[in-house]
Amino acid sequence: MDADFEKHLAETIMRLEDPGLLLVSTSKQGKNNVMTIGWGLIGMFWGKPVFVVSIRSSSYTHEFIRESEEFTVNVPTEAMTGVVRYCGEVSGREHDKLSECKLDLLKSRFVRTPVIGQCKLHYECRVVYGFDLFPRSNLLRHLVRVIAAKVEEIFCHYSGRYRSLFFGEILAVY
Amino acid sequence: MDADFEKHLAETIMRLEDPGLLLVSTSKQGKNNVMTIGWGLIGMFWGKPVFVVSIRSSSYTHEFIRESEEFTVNVPTEAMTGVVRYCGEVSGREHDKLSECKLDLLKSRFVRTPVIGQCKLHYECRVVYGFDLFPRSNLLRHLVRVIAAKVEEIFCHYSGRYRSLFFGEILAVY
Repeated sequence: MDADFEKHLAETIMRLEDPGLLLVSTSKQGKNNVMTIGWGLIGMFWGKPVFVVSIRSSSYTHEFIRESEEFTVNVPTEAMTGVVRYCGEVSGREHDKLSECKLDLLKSRFVRTPVIGQCKLHYECRVVYGFDLFPRSNLLRHLVRVIAAKVEEIFCHYSGRYRSLFFGEILAVY
Repeated sequence: MDADFEKHLAETIMRLEDPGLLLVSTSKQGKNNVMTIGWGLIGMFWGKPVFVVSIRSSSYTHEFIRESEEFTVNVPTEAMTGVVRYCGEVSGREHDKLSECKLDLLKSRFVRTPVIGQCKLHYECRVVYGFDLFPRSNLLRHLVRVIAAKVEEIFCHYSGRYRSLFFGEILAVY
């Protein structure tokens, strides 16, 4: 972890709250998608700097991250607030948000998933762990939740209502 | 989230890596315990600032946090490096680390769990969610893991080997 990481930490967390950050993910076939995230965590895990994002199982992004095990997080400028709102409202399944919003994709340094040119700060992340979020509860309730979630994932994954936490090791910040 | 939070964020994450931070927890009976954490996350979740800690299910702290649903995180001074190492090596089940290390406990503002006087920065946190960490996997493997963890928790919780993530809403930083 270096001075850059430290310097940008507070700004990233503040912008997460308002208006949100832009997360880019890439499918196995190389298709890119962008979504707005308002929840996120930064810290140290297994001795590594990590960016943790919480993604709903029904989202296009969930599918893409599962396939590529990568994502980039992009901190927007003030002028991009409208874009950030739009990318949080519609799904990549129905809209090509990247071209609709005229976002430029730039090649990343360490991952295949690109970063957004217009943004002022970029995190390149490789997923080191993924967890499905089920609150602590008794065994029976937990088992019911887990089975329901897996059934959803397999048979009707567009309607999946649980969330996964993806722990992305931060490979670069710039 | 205010300026204080922002200012202290980078320092907290840096100290987490080396030498670690001191986490205080309190049992239902009012007994206090301290442990060293080297893993942790700070960010926004459900529109709230949160401090997320990862605690092994076998630890005394896991038991205390489950009982009180609170914890405080204390950022040590440079001079406390020896104390931080010690509190990471022994268990509160065998040692009263707080008195052995002559740590002063001060009353917190919003939670019953105290903060450590000698530390230079304090986070008061109330647990808003707890998750047991099981990596994403196929259903059968997941079920085996979950059942094994619950059996451990009930019958031999001293040997519990899984981890829980406790999401603590940050009520105060000072």
